[in-house]
Amino acid sequence: MLPRLALVPGEPAGVGPELCVRLAQRPRSDCRLVAFADPLTLQAAAEALGLPLNLLHEDQPARAPGDLPLRMFPNANTVAFGRPDPRNARAVVDALLDAADGCLHGRFQGMVTGPVQKSAINEGGIPYTGTTELLAGHAGCEVVMMLANDVVRVALATTHLPLRAVPDAIDAGLLRRVLAITHRALRTDFGIADPVIAVLGLNPHAGEDGHLGREEIEVIGPVLEQLRGEGMRLAGPLPADTAFLPARLRGFDAVLAMYHDQGLPVLKYSGFERAVNLTLGLPYPRVAVDHGTALDLAGKGLADPSSLEAAVATCARMAAQRLQR
Amino acid sequence: MLPRLALVPGEPAGVGPELCVRLAQRPRSDCRLVAFADPLTLQAAAEALGLPLNLLHEDQPARAPGDLPLRMFPNANTVAFGRPDPRNARAVVDALLDAADGCLHGRFQGMVTGPVQKSAINEGGIPYTGTTELLAGHAGCEVVMMLANDVVRVALATTHLPLRAVPDAIDAGLLRRVLAITHRALRTDFGIADPVIAVLGLNPHAGEDGHLGREEIEVIGPVLEQLRGEGMRLAGPLPADTAFLPARLRGFDAVLAMYHDQGLPVLKYSGFERAVNLTLGLPYPRVAVDHGTALDLAGKGLADPSSLEAAVATCARMAAQRLQR
Repeated sequence: MLPRLALVPGEPAGVGPELCVRLAQRPRSDCRLVAFADPLTLQAAAEALGLPLNLLHEDQPARAPGDLPLRMFPNANTVAFGRPDPRNARAVVDALLDAADGCLHGRFQGMVTGPVQKSAINEGGIPYTGTTELLAGHAGCEVVMMLANDVVRVALATTHLPLRAVPDAIDAGLLRRVLAITHRALRTDFGIADPVIAVLGLNPHAGEDGHLGREEIEVIGPVLEQLRGEGMRLAGPLPADTAFLPARLRGFDAVLAMYHDQGLPVLKYSGFERAVNLTLGLPYPRVAVDHGTALDLAGKGLADPSSLEAAVATCARMAAQRLQR
Repeated sequence: MLPRLALVPGEPAGVGPELCVRLAQRPRSDCRLVAFADPLTLQAAAEALGLPLNLLHEDQPARAPGDLPLRMFPNANTVAFGRPDPRNARAVVDALLDAADGCLHGRFQGMVTGPVQKSAINEGGIPYTGTTELLAGHAGCEVVMMLANDVVRVALATTHLPLRAVPDAIDAGLLRRVLAITHRALRTDFGIADPVIAVLGLNPHAGEDGHLGREEIEVIGPVLEQLRGEGMRLAGPLPADTAFLPARLRGFDAVLAMYHDQGLPVLKYSGFERAVNLTLGLPYPRVAVDHGTALDLAGKGLADPSSLEAAVATCARMAAQRLQR
C-alpha cells in the first residue's frame, strides 16, 4: 500500500501554493499526495506559472500531470501573491490541524508542509510560535527538530533560544529525552537498526578537558555514559569543528548539536536546496521545507521546488518504513 | 625580491619536522624558506621517511630537492617521535621568539609555524596558552585569528572561551578593534582594495528582530552602522546558517563569526586539508597549519603536508603583497 501524505502548502501568499502545483506535474510512485488548501489559490498559482492543474476529490487518484487530490480549506479573502493577509490565517492553521488529525487517526501516514508566515498568523489573532510547536502541542508530544540533506542529519538539543540562554537550557533530562527521541526515530523512521549518533560538546574543543568550560564533564559526558550503558551507540562529546569533517560524518547516522548555529551552517552549506526540516517524536512522520515563504518570489514561477520535492520523498520513505513494521 | 620566510616546525616529536622535510623536496619560486629547528630531529625525520635532506647555512639558497637552509635551535634531548619531551620545550619557544624577532627586524618577511604541543610547553615550565598569544604578546599587538581555505576566510571575534562567556565578551570596543584589524589585513595582506566583510549575529536568526536576543540590536548593529559611516563595506548582522550558503559566500571577502563553533564547522567541512590559521594584526604575516601535532602519525610518513604547503603558499603571497606596497 502506498502511503497517503497530507500536503499543506502553508502561507497562501508565499511560494507554497506554486511549489505544490509544480509537484503535481509529475506522477509519483512513492506516495499519494492530498493537498490541504484553498482551490482558488492553487488555481491562481497554476495560471501564474502556465501549468495545468486538475483538482480532484481527495479520494480520487492522481493519474495525469496536473492532477492533484484536494481537501478544501477556503481562504477568507482572495490571495495576492507576495502580500500575506491575516484574514487568511485561520485557513492555514485549520489545514495544519486537520492534517494532524488525519495523521493521528490513520487516514494519512505523514504530513509535508510548506513555509508559514509567522507574523501573518499572529496578526490574524492566533497564538502561534511555529508549526513544529503547533503540531507538538496538538499531539501532546515532546519533539526534536532535525534538519537533513543528502550529506548529514543534524538534530538540535535547543532550537530558537538566545545564545545566552543555551548553556542553562542544556541539562541531563533534556539531553536524555532528545537522544531517546532521535534514536527511536532513526530506527523507526529511517530503518537504521543500530544507529550511531555523534553528540557535540557545548564549548569549543568540547571543553578541552575542562579548560574551556565544564558542561561536557558535568552534564553531557555523564548522560552519554549512562545511555551507552543502556545500549545506545554514541560518539562524543565531540568538538563541533572537526565532527563535521566529511570523513568523520560518514561514520555517523546523525549529529546532535547543542544549539542552532553550531549545527546548521554546515547543513545549509553542504546542500541547502535539498535540505528538509523534520519533526521527530510525533506519532507520524512530519517533514517541512527548509526555506521561508520567499514573498518576493511568490507567483513568479522562480521558486526552486527542490526542498519540497525532497520533503515529500523523505516523508514517503519514512511512512513506508513505518508501514513495513 | 623573493620573501624570506621563517619556517618553525613546532613540537619536535609531532609531525612538524617530517612535514618540513617533505616541503624541502620541491624547489620554490614564491619564497625562500629557512627552518628554525634542531638539525638532528630534521635528519631523523628525513631518515624515517627515506627522503633526502641537505641542511644548509641559513644564508645559502636551496637549489636541489632536499636542500633546506637552517637556523639552529638544538633540542636538549634526543627526540622520540610520538612522545613529547618537556625538556625540549625551551628550544620550541626559543625558535618561535627568534623567528618573531627576525620578522620584526625585517630579516624575514613572514612566519610559518607547524603544530605545537601546548601541554609539553607547560610541563616544561614555560607559561604558554598558544602560539598566537605568544606572538601577540611578543609584538605587543592585539590580533585576530582567521581560518581560511580556498572557499572561505573566517575571522573570529572570540576564540577559546567557554560558550557561557561569549555573549558578555562581545562588546562594541572589541568588535570595532576586530573589524579594523580584519579590514586592514584584507587590504594589506590580501590586496583587496575595498573588501566586503559579512558579520554574523550572535543569536540564531541574528536575533530575529529582538525575539531571539537583543545583542544584534544593541551592540553589533550600531557598531556596523558606525563603521559603514567610516567607509567599511559590511554586511550584517547576518544569520549564521544562511550566511555560509555558497552563493552568498561568493559575495564576501571574509566572514566575521562571533565565536568558535559558529564559524569553524563550515570552514573545516569545506576544505580541512588546505585550511590554514592566520594571525592578523602582527607587524608581519604569520600563518600556521590548521591541525595538531598528530602524535600517533609522527615519524611514520603518513602525515598530509597539504596544510603546511598551503600555509607557506599563503604566507608567501601575503609577504609579496606587503613588499609591493
